Amino acid sequence: MLGKIEHLGIAVKDLKQANDLYTKLLGRQPYKQEAVESEHVITSFFTAGENKIELLAATSDDSAIAKHIEKRGTGIHHVAYAVENIHAEMQRLESEGFTLINKEPKKGADNKLVAFIHPKSTNGVLVELCQEIQE
Amino acid sequence: MLGKIEHLGIAVKDLKQANDLYTKLLGRQPYKQEAVESEHVITSFFTAGENKIELLAATSDDSAIAKHIEKRGTGIHHVAYAVENIHAEMQRLESEGFTLINKEPKKGADNKLVAFIHPKSTNGVLVELCQEIQE
Repeated sequence: MLGKIEHLGIAVKDLKQANDLYTKLLGRQPYKQEAVESEHVITSFFTAGENKIELLAATSDDSAIAKHIEKRGTGIHHVAYAVENIHAEMQRLESEGFTLINKEPKKGADNKLVAFIHPKSTNGVLVELCQEIQE
Repeated sequence: MLGKIEHLGIAVKDLKQANDLYTKLLGRQPYKQEAVESEHVITSFFTAGENKIELLAATSDDSAIAKHIEKRGTGIHHVAYAVENIHAEMQRLESEGFTLINKEPKKGADNKLVAFIHPKSTNGVLVELCQEIQE
């Protein structure tokens, strides 16, 4: 079963402008900026209560974020749910008929193992499963 | 300052189909179904940890949800942040340059006072402020 909204991923064009805007909106500064080179994105994280807001800007035209903005404009890109056992949840969801984008979890930003569910199987919402990596 | 993600609003076409899909996805049943007649929508609520997922289906072509689906397809419609004092937050955000859609808070679903911020002032994200009504 899925847990809380670990974070909401928001596609932005200009990370500096978006950082300023979200600092005003949420009333606090970002706590971290992190590049995910495999995804060609740079991210910025804010807390919102027990949740996080992840701003995502493309660092290359090949990035999924650049393509998302080209097709749909800036805005909410994905919702990530916390899970305790990502392998078990991936198996459960696949057996329920959801289409997994990743066959295996991969390393995401903010010290997480992540896997995505295709929006065609979730009424148009890109869903991320997100498990904290225990060192 | 804004608090946790109180809920994520998701525009769906067929509430029964979406209820079934989210029951499988989240691994639990909806806890409430509620019509908001002023908005021409019927809603269904799920918990996700400390957060909620609100499915929204239009009950008339005049509904903002019907228009959203026509323009952008089904998917995430808005993000609602919990606030302790909605009047104070509306004033703060207006003075920071955000465009409020509502001049005064209105009664939303799930026993809340709500107000919306126009997506043109938030990089394309429809933001809701959401204060629990204390009886």
